[in-house]
Amino acid sequence: MLLLDGNATSAAIRTEIAEEVSKLKSQGKKVPHLAAILVGEDGASQTYVNAKVKACENVGFESTLVRMPAETSEEELLSTIKGLNENPNIDGFIVQLPLPKHIDEDKVTLAVAPQKDVDGFHPENVGRMSLGLPTFLPATPNGVMEMLGRYNIETVGKNCVVIGRSNIVGTPMAILMSRGTNPGNATVTLTHSRTKNLKEITLQADIIIVALGKPNFLTGEMVKQGAVVVDVGIHRIEDASKKSGFRLVGDVEFETVAPKCAAISPVPGGVGPMTIASLLQNTLKAVTMRK
Amino acid sequence: MLLLDGNATSAAIRTEIAEEVSKLKSQGKKVPHLAAILVGEDGASQTYVNAKVKACENVGFESTLVRMPAETSEEELLSTIKGLNENPNIDGFIVQLPLPKHIDEDKVTLAVAPQKDVDGFHPENVGRMSLGLPTFLPATPNGVMEMLGRYNIETVGKNCVVIGRSNIVGTPMAILMSRGTNPGNATVTLTHSRTKNLKEITLQADIIIVALGKPNFLTGEMVKQGAVVVDVGIHRIEDASKKSGFRLVGDVEFETVAPKCAAISPVPGGVGPMTIASLLQNTLKAVTMRK
Repeated sequence: MLLLDGNATSAAIRTEIAEEVSKLKSQGKKVPHLAAILVGEDGASQTYVNAKVKACENVGFESTLVRMPAETSEEELLSTIKGLNENPNIDGFIVQLPLPKHIDEDKVTLAVAPQKDVDGFHPENVGRMSLGLPTFLPATPNGVMEMLGRYNIETVGKNCVVIGRSNIVGTPMAILMSRGTNPGNATVTLTHSRTKNLKEITLQADIIIVALGKPNFLTGEMVKQGAVVVDVGIHRIEDASKKSGFRLVGDVEFETVAPKCAAISPVPGGVGPMTIASLLQNTLKAVTMRK
Repeated sequence: MLLLDGNATSAAIRTEIAEEVSKLKSQGKKVPHLAAILVGEDGASQTYVNAKVKACENVGFESTLVRMPAETSEEELLSTIKGLNENPNIDGFIVQLPLPKHIDEDKVTLAVAPQKDVDGFHPENVGRMSLGLPTFLPATPNGVMEMLGRYNIETVGKNCVVIGRSNIVGTPMAILMSRGTNPGNATVTLTHSRTKNLKEITLQADIIIVALGKPNFLTGEMVKQGAVVVDVGIHRIEDASKKSGFRLVGDVEFETVAPKCAAISPVPGGVGPMTIASLLQNTLKAVTMRK
């Protein structure tokens, strides 16, 4: 059983990016600059944003963190976004989700200029992905594609089942895996809460990508021998045996699934680290696409 | 076996649209105005465009056909598109494809203003569809959804197989059928030229949507008893027994598939007429979305 090591793969990508940045610097060119907007004090969001900012620094990008209080109005946020859209010094930026309830997330997503939308959330970029045009691919699905590609997982003509149809993971994942690329060219089945015969479907899958957000959902009896399993979920569950009082688990019950797998991504240390690597790739792309 | 009659369904939609137009007129409001650009003298394209213009007239829309010679430069075409984008009298317009080889179709698609793109081909509209935001749905997939909806075909939790992954039919079809709507909420498998075990997959399908562009491709032995089959293909094949010397067939071998089906769309008279009805729906929507 091969462990798809997201830490090692992400580190390799970051090293490549750091080399690109050094090259840009030595040519006297502008270094990529990522900005992140964080509204409010949500603990998990702060952790994510800080990790992104730190990752930028480590590869030599410039970064700007724009912190706004939880009571920021939608109008103020949209005006800050407009400022970043127009700021030639900022190559790409993200608005950390979720936003406080009084702010319309769709409106915010639409306000980010597509050419600076390094999260790949704007409809124009989602459409470009679907059409196979150059774009910013959404971070998590792109991270999974990178992982499959770098481990030379065979995907052409394979039966791939995606569990979960969210806009930011499951649906784009299904689109990317079915496109005529490598990795890709798989026969993809997109399953979700209304799917009736899930176990029957997963048992036929060569590749299973699990992104529904339920701890330990995929169990060994749902997986055929020799499958490749990618776990996108991440959850804190209580564990009295740990000093911290909790441990991290994914959407996959690793203990029962792993023994049947040809390859599997663990949690933590699987898809998670790939997501930030994707964001860095997109930010670098934002500079090169603009020329 | 229920025949999914595209002529009758399309006629019902057109009647509804004609009533809406009458209402707009009686309120002294502007009537929807669709423009179509046709470049060159391709026979099939002329037939399609003429059918669209005629359909507009029949429901009371205004229509404008812009004919340009085959040797039109890309620049001239883009400038004509810009004119239609800016013309407040035109609510929506289409550029008939295919275009002459010296013109970049991607560039043309991107030049059409998303709010007038009643074909639903612009990446922003493709992305909006994927994200479930209000948009112009592409005509053929939307026509299939309308047909399934108006015949009350149960789709929730059903296994749906889409054959063919084109940008304008197969891929959006898979997205629409998997979304949390009704019709929709199906478990969708998108198959294509690299799919290895197609017959095994189609034999498990409750609903099969065939859009790969090969005459008589889906045969009876690939379909389970009681399936619903929608045929998006249309081909002229030689037939000496006909006065015209040809007959129209779809991607489905109707004679062997139909006897096994709970419902099936014929060719001609199935999806074809639905496509134009969708275009009219989008043009009406272009007016109401702008308010």
